[in-house]
Amino acid sequence: MKTYLDCIPCFFSQALQQGRLFTGNELIHKEIMNEVASLVPGFSLGLTPPEMAREMHKLFRKRFAGQDIYKTIKDQSNHWAMELYSKLKEKVAQSKDRLLTAVELAIAGNVIDYGANKTLNIEEEIQKLMESNFTSGRKGIFQYEDLKKDLNAAKTVLYLADNAGEIVFDRIFIEEFCDDRKVIFSVRDKPAINDALMEDAVFCGIDKVVQVISSGVDAPGTILKYCSDDFLNIFKQADLIISKGQGNYEALSEAEGKIYFLFKVKCPVIARHSGAALGDIVLFSNLKRNGTVKNY
Amino acid sequence: MKTYLDCIPCFFSQALQQGRLFTGNELIHKEIMNEVASLVPGFSLGLTPPEMAREMHKLFRKRFAGQDIYKTIKDQSNHWAMELYSKLKEKVAQSKDRLLTAVELAIAGNVIDYGANKTLNIEEEIQKLMESNFTSGRKGIFQYEDLKKDLNAAKTVLYLADNAGEIVFDRIFIEEFCDDRKVIFSVRDKPAINDALMEDAVFCGIDKVVQVISSGVDAPGTILKYCSDDFLNIFKQADLIISKGQGNYEALSEAEGKIYFLFKVKCPVIARHSGAALGDIVLFSNLKRNGTVKNY
Repeated sequence: MKTYLDCIPCFFSQALQQGRLFTGNELIHKEIMNEVASLVPGFSLGLTPPEMAREMHKLFRKRFAGQDIYKTIKDQSNHWAMELYSKLKEKVAQSKDRLLTAVELAIAGNVIDYGANKTLNIEEEIQKLMESNFTSGRKGIFQYEDLKKDLNAAKTVLYLADNAGEIVFDRIFIEEFCDDRKVIFSVRDKPAINDALMEDAVFCGIDKVVQVISSGVDAPGTILKYCSDDFLNIFKQADLIISKGQGNYEALSEAEGKIYFLFKVKCPVIARHSGAALGDIVLFSNLKRNGTVKNY
Repeated sequence: MKTYLDCIPCFFSQALQQGRLFTGNELIHKEIMNEVASLVPGFSLGLTPPEMAREMHKLFRKRFAGQDIYKTIKDQSNHWAMELYSKLKEKVAQSKDRLLTAVELAIAGNVIDYGANKTLNIEEEIQKLMESNFTSGRKGIFQYEDLKKDLNAAKTVLYLADNAGEIVFDRIFIEEFCDDRKVIFSVRDKPAINDALMEDAVFCGIDKVVQVISSGVDAPGTILKYCSDDFLNIFKQADLIISKGQGNYEALSEAEGKIYFLFKVKCPVIARHSGAALGDIVLFSNLKRNGTVKNY
């Protein structure tokens, strides 16, 4: 997916959010805004949004001297989500279609996103999730039967994680199919917003269930040209790839391989690109949309 | 009101909206985004949002070669609003408190704003307004009794207009009090988003009811330091000033004089600054808030 100019205002909002997490000093916030502004002329229209975001995050890492400013937020998200673990398992156990409930939970967990949400009360969001039936989000495009079939046929599955906290919901889903096939769970290599890193996967016990690897990427999306060779080998050889979140969709919507995208539609640009509505929960394969995905 | 860094993402959204109205050429949209980015380092934290917006509009005027790109939109808004004129008058006539209904209509008309709204279907908004009871917006701060008293005592009133179309709603309100005092209606001097100009006031027949003047300002807000001397004399001598819309509030929140601000709260920054909630309709005086307005 190429970049939309509509993403630029959002980059400035994200930069401001990050600056405020880093310091209360408004002069520094302004300097950060100036720095992001200096990147704008270099944003080519051919880049994907995560590629542009990568440039911004490189700038943040320099500015924040490597400090992971979302660390506390990620720890809290992991903690709150882990507290739900047994309740989530119970929901799945009581379901008539365990896999369906588990995949719905995984997509519902994608609400835990500080990139698209400027203000997010994660405890409140998780509470809302628990009180809802998890399917209350309108299903925009939901190719569940296809996923089920492809999952049954797959011997190796690569699962691309998105956010901290959300990965507990991913774990619930993965536990429904990891006994019968090899599953590899990939996380970002360096801090980018609240995206899950290796330490988050370990905290949430994913490493006890499946193999966890880093994609090698330092951006909020799996940009293949920046992935490690090890990751790329696994990506190419996997029978099935499950890609969570908008960032991975933005980076991989035109990639080859049997990829299923699972996410909540959080911005108008993604709504337009995916053909779903804002707020929808979606599940679709890049191979099976039969032309319904508009390639801008 | 000084500028918030939160306004910067919004400037880029506005720039993109304007670029798209001007041309379908994405390369030119990108150039416009680059130009706005080049302004960011020069945005001092001490400026008000309309002062920053003024810099942007200067840039647009150069880029659009003086073309008023919101002209068609403004004409449509005026046209649709004028079609409602007799229905609006009827609503006021049937009211137990004519002035209250008229002021509510005037604030409700403030929904016609292309600055804060990225996508606005004005026909739909006006339809919604007609179907509602015009008071459905939560009244955040609503000093109606004070306004009524001050209006009764005032011999001269300066009314600062905001948007095209909305001025028909202003006319309805003004017609309730202009017979007993001198009322002067001011509009912007040069195109800025869909803000009302002299030609809009004439189309909507305001000039038949009261005197219409230009403020001399080429920005989407009454920035006193850029107003004409004639306007400033009237501003200083008026017993009462009625200021419509967020742009005028942003420019005048710290100004001297007995000013009543009437607007719909359309963004989180204004919500925080005014002490009202997003979506509220508000009516308050700069002199009578008794410290409830937080001066950032």
